[in-house]
Amino acid sequence: MQITEDTYMQRALELAAQAGGYCYPNPKVGCVIVKDGKIISEGYHKKYGEYHAERMAILNSKESVENSEVYVTLEPCSHTGKQPPCVDLLIESKVKRVIIANADPDTKVNGKGIEKLKDSGIEVHLGILNDKAYQLNEDYFYHRINQVPYVVGKIATSIDGKTSTFNKKSQWITNEKSRQYSHYLRSRYQAIMVGASTFNEDNPKLNVRINDGKDYYNPIKIIVTSSGKINLNHDLFKERSNNIIICTTPKIDFQQETKLNQMGCTVLKIPENDQGQVDIKLMLKELGNRNIVSIYLEGGSTLLESFIKLDLLQKLFVFMGNQILGGLNNGIINSNIYPEISTSPSFVLNQVRTFENNVMLDYYTQNYYEQLKKQLCLPV
Amino acid sequence: MQITEDTYMQRALELAAQAGGYCYPNPKVGCVIVKDGKIISEGYHKKYGEYHAERMAILNSKESVENSEVYVTLEPCSHTGKQPPCVDLLIESKVKRVIIANADPDTKVNGKGIEKLKDSGIEVHLGILNDKAYQLNEDYFYHRINQVPYVVGKIATSIDGKTSTFNKKSQWITNEKSRQYSHYLRSRYQAIMVGASTFNEDNPKLNVRINDGKDYYNPIKIIVTSSGKINLNHDLFKERSNNIIICTTPKIDFQQETKLNQMGCTVLKIPENDQGQVDIKLMLKELGNRNIVSIYLEGGSTLLESFIKLDLLQKLFVFMGNQILGGLNNGIINSNIYPEISTSPSFVLNQVRTFENNVMLDYYTQNYYEQLKKQLCLPV
Repeated sequence: MQITEDTYMQRALELAAQAGGYCYPNPKVGCVIVKDGKIISEGYHKKYGEYHAERMAILNSKESVENSEVYVTLEPCSHTGKQPPCVDLLIESKVKRVIIANADPDTKVNGKGIEKLKDSGIEVHLGILNDKAYQLNEDYFYHRINQVPYVVGKIATSIDGKTSTFNKKSQWITNEKSRQYSHYLRSRYQAIMVGASTFNEDNPKLNVRINDGKDYYNPIKIIVTSSGKINLNHDLFKERSNNIIICTTPKIDFQQETKLNQMGCTVLKIPENDQGQVDIKLMLKELGNRNIVSIYLEGGSTLLESFIKLDLLQKLFVFMGNQILGGLNNGIINSNIYPEISTSPSFVLNQVRTFENNVMLDYYTQNYYEQLKKQLCLPV
Repeated sequence: MQITEDTYMQRALELAAQAGGYCYPNPKVGCVIVKDGKIISEGYHKKYGEYHAERMAILNSKESVENSEVYVTLEPCSHTGKQPPCVDLLIESKVKRVIIANADPDTKVNGKGIEKLKDSGIEVHLGILNDKAYQLNEDYFYHRINQVPYVVGKIATSIDGKTSTFNKKSQWITNEKSRQYSHYLRSRYQAIMVGASTFNEDNPKLNVRINDGKDYYNPIKIIVTSSGKINLNHDLFKERSNNIIICTTPKIDFQQETKLNQMGCTVLKIPENDQGQVDIKLMLKELGNRNIVSIYLEGGSTLLESFIKLDLLQKLFVFMGNQILGGLNNGIINSNIYPEISTSPSFVLNQVRTFENNVMLDYYTQNYYEQLKKQLCLPV
């Protein structure tokens, strides 16, 4: 095999991916140090607050990194956050060349890292495997560019697009393997979101339950409840937790709010929209300000419908069972809002997976995909 | 490559498939003659009424087939139909061995061909690639075993299972490539069926329109109309044709019936069911008696709903567009008939294809698949 720049960057990407969700709200970054045509060290950003990828790789190295080539999936930071700037360390370490997949759109970095490296005489090469690297941190890029979370809808439907039987039975439309994969996806996003009725009716744990002995990131739980009326005796509240966010309106009962605060939840009072419900756009803005990078939106259909109607999804996962359920009022969008096929919400197929007789369809929303193409300079 | 029995049978299957729909109501059969480890001749049953595969292969041979091995995908016939029995020709030709994929369940053959070959001292080997051969003629086998046509449902839906917008616009849910593939599928079944309202509203030509210059079998057209009221000015009736069947009830107007007969259509008066509609089960029995082996059921949703409710489908093709259309009353089955997920109609995924942003899901119905597994001795 010929060792090329792509090969080293591919390895750096594999390292980056190992962080899973643990580095949120930071991006997943991997780093490979090459000297005399050999990888002499590797590192990745394991967890928020811990060492960045470049520092890890430099610290891991058993020999001097002077004059080495450093492959890093994202532009090294030039500012002091939880960690001192990586750029300074690279300069101090007298590396020869830094090969970067993506520039960092974060206003605190945004080309400044690259500039500083160049200014100190280090050769910089930008753009190797930039598309793959972009996809690895799509949610991070989206958040840094738009200041709102990247939102991924997830639906489980029958072949005929029903989310339950007509009398609202929905367990289980999809099979065990589909559900395990859906749990895996939960671990790939920073937060999971459900509506109040789903929460109250299903008593969901909203955690990652995969029985393979491995360790998975458990997302922050967000419950959207316009009235604030959610069942505080539910399983989710059994353990005191600081990773629950309640998005509600000023209508919430004062006692309920106090109890939620006491239990360690964060209560966000978002202004109401015309219908007296949580204003979804303002909610996303608030969550974005609080560094929520991505949301896996699991239901219910009313909340998902709002996101689709307002074109606030970037991605949609459709898990399709293998029955026809029939009936009215148990579809994904039951209101008559799209009179024309050409103007109804349209999606770009990214991937298909099968789980025995089930299918998973992985879509981008058309509007987000148009943005993505421009960002990645994909053929239009 | 090692030449094995499978290799020769695979070739025979490829030859068989070349007939497309032209040999209906006969099965697709291919034949390869091997002598001294070399293929010396090939043949297949091209068209109903023409030579069978074995006869074609023997006639095509430039050398004597004496002492040869004959690979044939279906048990050679022992009766005189449109053609004299192939078994007699094989015996006369003094072939040494006959290798067969499937026995023929047709009561006129049904092991008698094999028996006669054995009785005359020819070695017979049954079962090579029997599963692939069975799949090639699944509809033929189904018809011969059950005496009713094999019925394949086809739906075009949005991601959310809608067959149109709420105000009934359905052109086009799927893209050009999906539609071309659906036309190809039309050519793979003996007949195409639609309901009266689809016929009256859409004025469909029900033929195969694929723009690749190749020749495709055009299926027999079947229109189901309980009242007999279909628009005789529609395009389908512009050419006098003897390949149109109208399935109606005794309610049909005498004048309408006369006109349809004059135009060369076959009018079948099927008894009504409780709702005054064509009794679907009796219709299939009648069509089966008339040697209709398979039906590609294209719509509308009322007719398809009846077939699903009565469990009369064997296969289902779901072409899925890439929009969410929303709305009520525009799904596949709108009535509240399935209260439980576990007892709603369930399907076995056979294949997934993608056409750009569209997906085609190819399913067997659960009940038919159970039969099929037994027939093919597949792992249960």
